[in-house]
Amino acid sequence: MNDNTAALFAGNRTTLGDYHANHFGWSVTNGVGTITLDRPERKNPLTFESYAELRDLFRQLAYATDVKSVVIHGAGDNFCSGGDVHDIIAPLVDLPMPELLMFTRMTGDLVKAMRHCPQPIVSAVDGICAGAGAIVAMASDLRLGTARSKLAFLFTRVGLAGCDMGACAILPRIIGQGRAAELLFTGRSASGDEGFAWGFYNRLCEPGDVVREAQSLAFDLASGPTFAHGITKKMLHQEWSMSIDEAIESEAQAQAICMATNDFGRAYRAFAAKTRPVFEGD
Amino acid sequence: MNDNTAALFAGNRTTLGDYHANHFGWSVTNGVGTITLDRPERKNPLTFESYAELRDLFRQLAYATDVKSVVIHGAGDNFCSGGDVHDIIAPLVDLPMPELLMFTRMTGDLVKAMRHCPQPIVSAVDGICAGAGAIVAMASDLRLGTARSKLAFLFTRVGLAGCDMGACAILPRIIGQGRAAELLFTGRSASGDEGFAWGFYNRLCEPGDVVREAQSLAFDLASGPTFAHGITKKMLHQEWSMSIDEAIESEAQAQAICMATNDFGRAYRAFAAKTRPVFEGD
Amino acid sequence: MNDNTAALFAGNRTTLGDYHANHFGWSVTNGVGTITLDRPERKNPLTFESYAELRDLFRQLAYATDVKSVVIHGAGDNFCSGGDVHDIIAPLVDLPMPELLMFTRMTGDLVKAMRHCPQPIVSAVDGICAGAGAIVAMASDLRLGTARSKLAFLFTRVGLAGCDMGACAILPRIIGQGRAAELLFTGRSASGDEGFAWGFYNRLCEPGDVVREAQSLAFDLASGPTFAHGITKKMLHQEWSMSIDEAIESEAQAQAICMATNDFGRAYRAFAAKTRPVFEGD
Repeated sequence: MNDNTAALFAGNRTTLGDYHANHFGWSVTNGVGTITLDRPERKNPLTFESYAELRDLFRQLAYATDVKSVVIHGAGDNFCSGGDVHDIIAPLVDLPMPELLMFTRMTGDLVKAMRHCPQPIVSAVDGICAGAGAIVAMASDLRLGTARSKLAFLFTRVGLAGCDMGACAILPRIIGQGRAAELLFTGRSASGDEGFAWGFYNRLCEPGDVVREAQSLAFDLASGPTFAHGITKKMLHQEWSMSIDEAIESEAQAQAICMATNDFGRAYRAFAAKTRPVFEGD
Repeated sequence: MNDNTAALFAGNRTTLGDYHANHFGWSVTNGVGTITLDRPERKNPLTFESYAELRDLFRQLAYATDVKSVVIHGAGDNFCSGGDVHDIIAPLVDLPMPELLMFTRMTGDLVKAMRHCPQPIVSAVDGICAGAGAIVAMASDLRLGTARSKLAFLFTRVGLAGCDMGACAILPRIIGQGRAAELLFTGRSASGDEGFAWGFYNRLCEPGDVVREAQSLAFDLASGPTFAHGITKKMLHQEWSMSIDEAIESEAQAQAICMATNDFGRAYRAFAAKTRPVFEGD
Repeated sequence: MNDNTAALFAGNRTTLGDYHANHFGWSVTNGVGTITLDRPERKNPLTFESYAELRDLFRQLAYATDVKSVVIHGAGDNFCSGGDVHDIIAPLVDLPMPELLMFTRMTGDLVKAMRHCPQPIVSAVDGICAGAGAIVAMASDLRLGTARSKLAFLFTRVGLAGCDMGACAILPRIIGQGRAAELLFTGRSASGDEGFAWGFYNRLCEPGDVVREAQSLAFDLASGPTFAHGITKKMLHQEWSMSIDEAIESEAQAQAICMATNDFGRAYRAFAAKTRPVFEGD
């Protein structure tokens, strides 16, 4: 991007390396942003504040020039226990309908923001991964788990429906309609082995390694053709409910865009020179 | 529901505990309705009459106040052999087109009624589960199988297409597009182990236990937040072909409705009191 | 078809048994058309010419009366290495946008033609199955693999997005959204065992047997009710993004059509006579 276009698109460019998050940990290293849910003494629950700040961070990531992939993990031995019973469920019980909808839209907006940012998101799931925590893992692009991870869509246990933050749409496409129905109707935990066999986790890791492996995978992605990765993510989202013919035309257009990028030429010249391509994301 | 609203919605309330089914067994215990396909000497085939009565029963279930979940199983060692060759296929061969369509719409209406009633449906599948029987299992919400169960979408064997009662839409979402294509093109049987590995069955049980385990699971569901279960089922249906963004907004609305129910407050108060919630479905 | 209707539909009827393909092998035996990608010294890459000829062949198959199913395989120990780096990627790097789109639409049109022809397509995958080769396997109806087959959606390695020829729409429905995302974002190879466990391959075969087994399966399909098979394939395509209720009505209509075919009567009469039906595809 030259100076002129940088000026034109000033509102679309930001950096997040120095961003200080108030309600979770955030750091950026080598293009990988890491979110640490960090109230380990309560198994890293979400609160009204952390929901809103996560939503806003993922929305800002659409414009970040220094973050090319994202890792989400929990401090201690757990990923996330979901919405805090005291901080969230207690006040919700007494809210009038417009505010209930304001809440469910805010949580849904977090998932939308995760799906709309161009960076691939890798969740590193150990221990408890429940309720809204299970949703955050589900809404990621890739998931690494551990044998002891426990995945549970607990909504039914608090008298609610399984349709929370997109679960009835997204979970069946990851693990199949029948398995998703069981988890959503019963709220039962799925083990790490089940989650891996069902395709929820891409890989199981040792608990001591899962964050590092997620960051390594995220770093590999951040070192790849990141503009093209953003298009891959956009099209996985965009083609969700298209017909096959519509999807094929959309991909023809999207891939033609990628063929006009410099990264495509870099890859070809590296191949011809028998070297590894160095991608720059443009 | 107080007396006034009960009067207003009289046409939307019925009880099915005393319903006497003519073409299959039907009983209601502890909120669980059990359908027994009961012509074991012919492996429990469906007939014109049983199709129509099943369709009408599932339509009535939308208004039933005494049935909170449903189990379907077959008498003897088999689930269901599908449409009876003598009773169904023989007359179909000679029907004019409007009546052929009347038949295929009637069978499709059974699946629609199963998907539109709010009760979760658990099929207990042992032995032969073929043709329309395989469809009934597929159209259920949850499925328990046995090692000896044989699942077969036999339509191709009688010269028909695999597109029967929604199979080309629903089966791929349960077991994957490639496996579904094989079953539908070839009509081959899938074993219990295959059905479990593929996510068709949620669990494999001993043949002597499968009905009891299905009823136990159905009872657990009937003891849960049944209004919310009905919303879970509706949204799994409703979001089938929505975009992700549309699905998330739909879930925000649907879950806000559930947060306004008494069961949500009951769950919170039970949690605060360190007791188990007793859900009442309102 | 009598003489009058044959004349009316002359433009819709052709035979391909004598077709001579210029850029791959083609033969027809017992109703099974076999495509052999045959540049084994380069692992059977695709070229501009072979893309176009494959697209045109699959379009012609819609009218072929002598081909009832199709097998695709590669000469030697590999299926297909994808678009040739020298013959395809080199020229693409310098093309203006309208021609880039012309290329991506041509490759997408191959997948559309594979999905729109009525014949079930069985891919026999051994060795390397990469890039556009992986797409051709994905776009088939059934896939047989070998333990040593290596499936890789390599687009990211050349700086492109995973959205190529329908991959972001089709692959997730075959192997699940999470596994598809991993293959498309990382370009990593999936082993034969993984591909089978994930439902990409319907079966693993010995390398020496995979083509023969694919042809045997294709022959079984060619010996079945081929008009109905074409309807099965069309409905698997057509219902991709329908709601469940729409899909059920569409299947009611499609199956009523099949009930009006002669093959349905043949199957019933064979059953009544305790013989095997001989289907004729009308």
